[in-house]
Amino acid sequence: MNKLVSNVLLGVALTFVVACGQDTTTEQTKVKASEAAPVDVQAHPNLLLAAKDLPTLKTEAANYPLFSRALNAAKTTVDEAMAAPVDVPFPKDPGGGYTHEQHKKNALLMYQAATLSAITGDTAYSDWAIALMKRYAELYPSVPLHPEHKHQAPGKLFWQVLNDAWWLVYIIQAYDALLPQMSQADQTLISQQLLLPHANFLSEGSAETFNKVHNHGTWAAAAVGMTGLVLKDDHLVNIALRGLDGSGASGFLAQLDQLFSPDGYYTEGPYYQRYALLPFVVFARALERNKPELGIFEYRDGIVLKAIYASIQLSNGGLFFPLNDAIKDKGLDTIEMVFGVDVAYGLTGDKDLLAIAQYQQQVTLNGDGLAVARDLHQLAATPAFSFGSKLFRDGPAGDQGGVAILRSNNATVVFKAASQGMGHGHFDRLGWIYYDGANEIVSDYGAARYLNVEPKRGGIYLPENDTWAKQTVAHNALVRNEESQFSGDVKAASKHNPEITRFTRGDGWQLVSATESHAYPGTEFDRTFVLLDNLGTEAPVVLDLLRVDANEAANFDLPFHYQGQLMFHTGKANLALDALKPLGKANGYQHLWNKGELVAEKNTVQVSWLQRNRFYTLTQWMPEKSRMALTELGANDPEFNLRREAGLVVRYAKTKQATFVSALESHGEYNGVREYTLAPRGDIGDIGYSSVGDYSLVHIKLKSGLAYTVAIAHVAQDGEHTVNTAEGAITWTGDVTVVPNN
Amino acid sequence: MNKLVSNVLLGVALTFVVACGQDTTTEQTKVKASEAAPVDVQAHPNLLLAAKDLPTLKTEAANYPLFSRALNAAKTTVDEAMAAPVDVPFPKDPGGGYTHEQHKKNALLMYQAATLSAITGDTAYSDWAIALMKRYAELYPSVPLHPEHKHQAPGKLFWQVLNDAWWLVYIIQAYDALLPQMSQADQTLISQQLLLPHANFLSEGSAETFNKVHNHGTWAAAAVGMTGLVLKDDHLVNIALRGLDGSGASGFLAQLDQLFSPDGYYTEGPYYQRYALLPFVVFARALERNKPELGIFEYRDGIVLKAIYASIQLSNGGLFFPLNDAIKDKGLDTIEMVFGVDVAYGLTGDKDLLAIAQYQQQVTLNGDGLAVARDLHQLAATPAFSFGSKLFRDGPAGDQGGVAILRSNNATVVFKAASQGMGHGHFDRLGWIYYDGANEIVSDYGAARYLNVEPKRGGIYLPENDTWAKQTVAHNALVRNEESQFSGDVKAASKHNPEITRFTRGDGWQLVSATESHAYPGTEFDRTFVLLDNLGTEAPVVLDLLRVDANEAANFDLPFHYQGQLMFHTGKANLALDALKPLGKANGYQHLWNKGELVAEKNTVQVSWLQRNRFYTLTQWMPEKSRMALTELGANDPEFNLRREAGLVVRYAKTKQATFVSALESHGEYNGVREYTLAPRGDIGDIGYSSVGDYSLVHIKLKSGLAYTVAIAHVAQDGEHTVNTAEGAITWTGDVTVVPNN
Repeated sequence: MNKLVSNVLLGVALTFVVACGQDTTTEQTKVKASEAAPVDVQAHPNLLLAAKDLPTLKTEAANYPLFSRALNAAKTTVDEAMAAPVDVPFPKDPGGGYTHEQHKKNALLMYQAATLSAITGDTAYSDWAIALMKRYAELYPSVPLHPEHKHQAPGKLFWQVLNDAWWLVYIIQAYDALLPQMSQADQTLISQQLLLPHANFLSEGSAETFNKVHNHGTWAAAAVGMTGLVLKDDHLVNIALRGLDGSGASGFLAQLDQLFSPDGYYTEGPYYQRYALLPFVVFARALERNKPELGIFEYRDGIVLKAIYASIQLSNGGLFFPLNDAIKDKGLDTIEMVFGVDVAYGLTGDKDLLAIAQYQQQVTLNGDGLAVARDLHQLAATPAFSFGSKLFRDGPAGDQGGVAILRSNNATVVFKAASQGMGHGHFDRLGWIYYDGANEIVSDYGAARYLNVEPKRGGIYLPENDTWAKQTVAHNALVRNEESQFSGDVKAASKHNPEITRFTRGDGWQLVSATESHAYPGTEFDRTFVLLDNLGTEAPVVLDLLRVDANEAANFDLPFHYQGQLMFHTGKANLALDALKPLGKANGYQHLWNKGELVAEKNTVQVSWLQRNRFYTLTQWMPEKSRMALTELGANDPEFNLRREAGLVVRYAKTKQATFVSALESHGEYNGVREYTLAPRGDIGDIGYSSVGDYSLVHIKLKSGLAYTVAIAHVAQDGEHTVNTAEGAITWTGDVTVVPNN
Repeated sequence: MNKLVSNVLLGVALTFVVACGQDTTTEQTKVKASEAAPVDVQAHPNLLLAAKDLPTLKTEAANYPLFSRALNAAKTTVDEAMAAPVDVPFPKDPGGGYTHEQHKKNALLMYQAATLSAITGDTAYSDWAIALMKRYAELYPSVPLHPEHKHQAPGKLFWQVLNDAWWLVYIIQAYDALLPQMSQADQTLISQQLLLPHANFLSEGSAETFNKVHNHGTWAAAAVGMTGLVLKDDHLVNIALRGLDGSGASGFLAQLDQLFSPDGYYTEGPYYQRYALLPFVVFARALERNKPELGIFEYRDGIVLKAIYASIQLSNGGLFFPLNDAIKDKGLDTIEMVFGVDVAYGLTGDKDLLAIAQYQQQVTLNGDGLAVARDLHQLAATPAFSFGSKLFRDGPAGDQGGVAILRSNNATVVFKAASQGMGHGHFDRLGWIYYDGANEIVSDYGAARYLNVEPKRGGIYLPENDTWAKQTVAHNALVRNEESQFSGDVKAASKHNPEITRFTRGDGWQLVSATESHAYPGTEFDRTFVLLDNLGTEAPVVLDLLRVDANEAANFDLPFHYQGQLMFHTGKANLALDALKPLGKANGYQHLWNKGELVAEKNTVQVSWLQRNRFYTLTQWMPEKSRMALTELGANDPEFNLRREAGLVVRYAKTKQATFVSALESHGEYNGVREYTLAPRGDIGDIGYSSVGDYSLVHIKLKSGLAYTVAIAHVAQDGEHTVNTAEGAITWTGDVTVVPNN
């Protein structure tokens, strides 16, 4: 504290010098001292890092491994940087280029050095960071719009203004943490020549981006708003919250209103939800500290926290559901989620979050991060997060479909019946993913992109992202006439959304249903997933029922993408053993090798495979005229961009009505080390299907001799359902009943 | 101790009863009491578990996690078994069948229960195990040769005598541990009706197997020999050591002489070495305890310990090198290696072994296991095993080629120039495997088999083991005219072996060379690997030089099997984008899809791929008329038995001489979570090759501008080598020199 006090005094002294016009640095002469009012530096930092937490942070930093490790990592990075000269180059290069990377690096270094100085009290860090920040203040007035800005909203330090906003989000936090160590003259210099002009550039100077209700707008709002909070500039805070005209039609609050659904779902999907989350979380935390009267975390029924929790629920085994243009490595241990979890924990103290923090093995360097590290360290039992069955509605009003998750034991069904999700959306309505434990079993390809891998076209989205990854056949979703939904037209797809009709559960079952009427003109289809717990099988069984009703005969395909090695199949096989051709010509089909076809011998085809150490068996109802193609990805792939993945496609030719019915089981174990194998074949012998009016009857026969009829009501009603079958009437209430047949 | 003493007294009392002929159980009346001499039960157990260790085991069992966990696991298993009736069925079923599995299970249960009783003093365990063993003693006299023994040396409890030997190895250990709790009557019953007759059956009764110098013989020797040790029957011990005729032409000592090379290499390769190891280790440990005068662990310069250490060295990342018919899951954590490591540690106290034990996370329930668990628990630092560069010569005299390992930093080159390795050997002379850290980068397919997976033909070797896995093209080894080495004939291949000509190292390099003259008649080829540390690249570079000299023109192919996703290639490509055909018609070629061809634009072709999070680049010297086929495994695979793996084949058409030269680098990092990629392209720009007499000159140009000539002398000589090149003379001593060119 003595050091802090002495620096405060020093700050006052320097203020006096500036006020007397005795400052000798030429760059500062343009700034009038009167414009920079003295700041109560003792109240700073006060964004994510808070002055009130500093004594505790200093005392306890070494006590909790996660925190001390983060602190030491920051020290190592900054110490290394401080040992060498630092370049502040004139902005010139596009993304990935030298000046781009250098300015990014410098921002993080200033942020880390400022944080270290605040927590440890070591002024070597603040001296260094202040000196570096002053160089930016000296450079900034001479920087024009970035020369490389052809297709982007231009920035100044970077080619696109999004990066400039990102930069200020870190710089303003650094400045905030440095304030107690900063002379009045330096405060004036930096605020007047760097922070304010940059905040003005991001707002007035980049009005279109700033007024966007889009994650680019959120980064700008966070940067400008936090600058306002630190500099006590209410105008900046106000435009950050309510847009340039102050009307509230844009700005942070409008973004909170419109970018998330009432359940906290972000329309582009979990991968981009993570990316969008950071500025929301950071700015909200700063607002909570500085404008508690705003009640930002209560805003819209707690939408910021909902968004954080939604991001967690939209993951499995630590990785986000790879919906839409997703890089499949991304998950809960990304830096955005570290910020999200720490802030949420700081606010709620919800012990569930410690499980996520433990997975992250990382905390942020502030009071919230310390609380997480401390409480995790002191926790007696292993923490667990309550992953559950959830429906995340899509759209600002929650009426644009959604993503449904059914979970039971190790089984997770992800059903995508959401809106298009803008330009990064895939044409995969009523598609699904299935996980067994942490393993993705029925899989989604994600994006065709090797992020940041220069030899793969510089790391951008590859041509195969359009020709394969976005296409319907790349998903576990219905294809008509080998064409993608909405003919692959984002605009058309954005006008309509599927409808989730039911999301219910009962004794031993969970159900979700959705309908889609616009993806293929003149064609309606619905799909129902029932997760069944009590059939006497080793693990829950996933029942999948997709019904198509078209006004013209067409070919209907339902692809199913699996990982792993095929173990066995039933049915009559006609395989392509010594020559392969693609399955089709376009819309993704040109990328699938056709390895042959199976037809049922007795109305059912089973395909079973081994993935890691567990077996999976799909039992597909295959009435006459249906057939199953076996596929492998990789045709027409001149740059070897596609992964070699397996799939199958259930096909109906020239029909107006088609019904796809299957049951998926996970079973057994392969243990090569201990030399045993358990249950390499599933419990289900075969399945059958019939329908009576608006009721579907799925007959499941187990090899044990047990047999069930699963009766599904396609129309919800409060009272009793009754279906008359050859074996007698079935009567029940609710969406589903499971009737033992023997 | 009180309980032990009281039971000993009880044992004596019962002995008296039997001696007086007062025993009332009808089953025992046939046994004359005089035949069963009283045993000093206090001296038992004394095989792997020793009476002298019991007090310590009892006191300290709970102190060390690895030991207490193993003890508790055994308790759980046995408690569960004791809670239900146990079946001792009349032997009937073949391997995998009910009676087969039940007898296996019962043996392990008796062994575990006996061990628990000895360590904990809880007589509930011994009572139960003795009762169960008596049921076997009652059953045994009525058991004829097993009905299912068509193609095997027949057993009695099992279809093949190998399983019967395995069974007695566990049962005799159980009996040994139960002795202190066993009445004289029970001793008599069990020894006379079960142990001795079964030992006789395994020896006199199965003379052919018993006299085999083969791992089946070792199991029999261990079973019979340990029975002799426990029952104080020197005849049994003697035939176990020296064969039925006592000449020493067969038996355990002959097996020790002939089955391992002087370096401890087992000719079938590491996968089978592990399997063969267990009876050697167990019987040797028992001999050491009971016949210390034999000095079994000093025998043949310590061959048993050498074999244990060799097994460890012949692994990477915990998994055995998958040479020959190997299941790739098998590694250091198998039960055989747990026994091996514990026994070796008990004898040597070599702290290196604790690193392996830590990987195993398992110990055996005896004094050796306790020592491992205790010392690992008390170790301050993380233990590390010294994996190093080693040559393992093959053949009893060490003159039948061998397997060479070059290791430097993370790089491991495995060069296979061993003899055929009997029926499980592959036709892969002068083939290689390369690891980066724990990851297999240049890969060996191992066996085409899903061990114990019933849907895959009951888990046996699949047809593709012959048509693919054993064939030369399935390996990284030279193929002539699309035919396998020795035309795939094991007998022919077993007559000859490659010769390892050099295994040397110098400053910054390690080298191994071998020649092969018989694999293809009229064709000699040699191959040299040089692992180079000091080129200024991120990781060591592997230089691979294969020279062929044939008396008739032929086509020569050098396949290269890699894992991972292709990132980029250079050269002119002619790809099969929309139709695939197999690369050839037979000898494994029928299983490779031909995805197209690359030819060099400037004498070099690079192929780069990403595996897990690291990049690999192969730079192949490609003179005119050579071409490179890109392949994928999976053609002509009607049961989907083959894994979808990638490869490339460097090809020379119709030539008498061919030289294959390449350099392999590992580089960079892909980090999707933290969004960065380092060095996705390697350091090597291109390579060139020239030869002068018996010298090879490989020219390596780095992109940095650095360039080197690696001069390799193909004939070893003590003095100086001199090569005159256009750039001047190069003079050096040793096998290799690396000359910077600028």
